[in-house]
Formats: sequence, structure tokens, C-alpha cells
Amino acid sequence: MRISKNDLRLCLVTDENMYRDDEHLCRIVLSAIAGGATMVQLREKKADTRSMTRKGALLKEILPQGVPLIINDRVDVALAVNADGVHLGQSDMPVAYARKLLGKNKIIGLSVETKEHALEANTLPIDYIGLSPVFSTATKQDIATPLGLPGIKEITGISQHPSLGIGGITLSNVAAVIRAGADGVAVVSYLMQAPDSRNAAKSMKYAIEEAFS
Amino acid sequence: MRISKNDLRLCLVTDENMYRDDEHLCRIVLSAIAGGATMVQLREKKADTRSMTRKGALLKEILPQGVPLIINDRVDVALAVNADGVHLGQSDMPVAYARKLLGKNKIIGLSVETKEHALEANTLPIDYIGLSPVFSTATKQDIATPLGLPGIKEITGISQHPSLGIGGITLSNVAAVIRAGADGVAVVSYLMQAPDSRNAAKSMKYAIEEAFS
Repeated sequence: MRISKNDLRLCLVTDENMYRDDEHLCRIVLSAIAGGATMVQLREKKADTRSMTRKGALLKEILPQGVPLIINDRVDVALAVNADGVHLGQSDMPVAYARKLLGKNKIIGLSVETKEHALEANTLPIDYIGLSPVFSTATKQDIATPLGLPGIKEITGISQHPSLGIGGITLSNVAAVIRAGADGVAVVSYLMQAPDSRNAAKSMKYAIEEAFS
Repeated sequence: MRISKNDLRLCLVTDENMYRDDEHLCRIVLSAIAGGATMVQLREKKADTRSMTRKGALLKEILPQGVPLIINDRVDVALAVNADGVHLGQSDMPVAYARKLLGKNKIIGLSVETKEHALEANTLPIDYIGLSPVFSTATKQDIATPLGLPGIKEITGISQHPSLGIGGITLSNVAAVIRAGADGVAVVSYLMQAPDSRNAAKSMKYAIEEAFS
């Protein structure tokens, strides 16, 4: 197993518009982990490769043992900084190429937006699926129709992979997402923009654990 | 030697705004090669990774033996499609990481915009430098002050690497760029937007060879 369901409980996803500089990024990431975030995805949509590589290397350095670092889209950056894996969207590198480049020890997550994507994902050498988006969100623009809770239930019912809900997840809806079948959630704004990311992660982690119990 | 000065004579650089679809791209590329282009750089600034990978694989398949395929910026795409190498800018992945990922058999080109970049490039495991930009150009927006012919002369004088002039190069100025010290030129619009890319490449190649003789 390259990743456990416990690793997927609460994934912090970064957003370059939600921090000021490297130091601020590191502070938010470490606070969220102190509050209970179980993995970190570096997602930079506009940054150039040099700054993405720098940030990846920085996060790799500061992340505690046992908290996987996942790089969005960029297999080269993941390899360069020796991250734990990548998260791929449907417009990113096809999984077969990515698996070949990353080898069998790295994590690959794949966003699925439809039932058809989920069925295809069952045939692919990936480690988890991202259910994307669960709800509508201001963070990502170019996205598919929200799956909603019925969509989560349907897709987790047919998927053979562990799953992570992403998109519009907050403290008030996280329990419902877990109860609909997700193994965890990936969160951008609720953690990145919280006045106190540690507290925000702590409350969310508690709600997730409650929903499982 | 991963690349010879002859390979650098006339590099076609693609631009996603200058062709309609994959078929059109292939037609322009093959015409330019038939006219004498000696290498091809796939440069896609807005395309997603999936389409860049698809185009890279396509070019790799159609390029004749002996015409290197270079991928701009993306080391992962270069590895995925088994391209001959990458071209890196000053904001792309640092050369040390890229060389490690690509191994010692792949070509790495690096854009230099100043004398200082050129001196630093002398210490790096690269195969050629791109002199960028030679003249001002409408193709690329976010670029440094044009080097001009005196800049080409100065940088090629101190560089230990073969060099490729890029930026605003046309049939009327190519000879001067070669005489200023470049080993070749990289051309976007003049070849990509020519009514007949084969003829455009042929005239340019002739002018380059004349300038060397």
C-alpha cells in the first residue's frame, strides 16, 4: 500500500492566491498539520516551474514523517523534489505515462468527475480518486458539474479505490460527505483562509472522525 | 556530444496560436523540416499537460531520424514521450534537477538573457544556450530587453556552449545574427505563419549557410 485510508482523511490543498510568500505558506501548512491534516497537496496553477520546484522542495523539507506530499499535475516537480506522489486531473498527464515515470512506489491520485471516469479509474494503476467537485466552489473555475452527495454515494459505490471529496467542503458539510461514502476530504479555502488553520483543521478532523464513528 | 552545431542551425519553435489542430501542426513541422529545419522545439504555453503530451508523442512519431525533438519547460513531458531533450528558461526547473531527471543522454538547452546568465551557464551541464531575445518580438510577451547584435557578439564571445539566437528573427536579419556569433537560430512566426513553411525554411537555411561560408 502506497497510501492508507487514514492518510486520506484530511488533505490540505494549497492555493497560490491564499498566501503571501513561502514563509506564510509553510506556516499555514504546519498549522493545518498540527491541527490534524493528514496529507498536503501542492497545487499551483499559475506559478512557473522554478517557483513550484522551490515550494515543493521546501514543503518536502518541513513536512513531518508520515504526512505525504502530493504535487498537483507536475510529475517532473514531484520527481525533482522527491515528493510522495502526484494528483492528476482528467486534463493532466495520462496515468499510464505518469506511473511509468514515477515507478511503483509513488502515490497517484486521479480526479473523477463522472461515473464513467470512476469506472475507467478502476482499470488504472492509481492509489485514490478525487471526487471532484463535491459542491460548487469559487476556488476552481474550469470545473465540471458538482457531484453532490448522491454523486458521491454513487461513485464511491462503484469505485475500487479509496476516495477523497474535493470542492466546497466546510465544517458544516464535511460529515455528510464522509457519510455519503468518501474516505476523506481535500480542502482549500476553509483551511488556507482560516484565521487559525490549526483550529480549523482540528474542528474539521473532529467532524470527520465523528462521521466515521 | 548530445547535439552538434549542425543540429542547431535552424530550430523550428511551435506556437499553439499559430496552428489549428494536430494535423495542421504536423503539416507545418514536416514542411519546415523538408525545407531544411534541423530541430524542433514544442513550446505550448497554455495547453494542458494531456494535450502537450499528446502533441509531443505525435511529433516524436513523425520526426525523421536525426531531427531532435526538444520540449519547452516540461521535463515530465519530455520523459513521457521520449523526446531528445528540453529547453529551459530562467524561470523553469533549475538545470541541476532537470539533468538528474533526464540523465546524461538527453539534450538540455537554457535561455540566457544577460551576460551573467551566460557566465552561470558555463558552469552548468547543458548542451546549448538560447540567446533570448535577439530582437523584440510579438510572439513572447514576458521577456527581457533584446540583446541585439552587440549582445549576441558579447555573449557568444564568453560562452563555452553552442548557441541559438531566438526572438524576432526573419530572413532579412538571420545572416547578421549568425555573423554576430550564433551557431544557429530558433524561429517561431517566420516559419509557423509562412504561407509555405517549406519555402520559408529553405530560404532561411540558405541565408544561414551563406553567412557561415
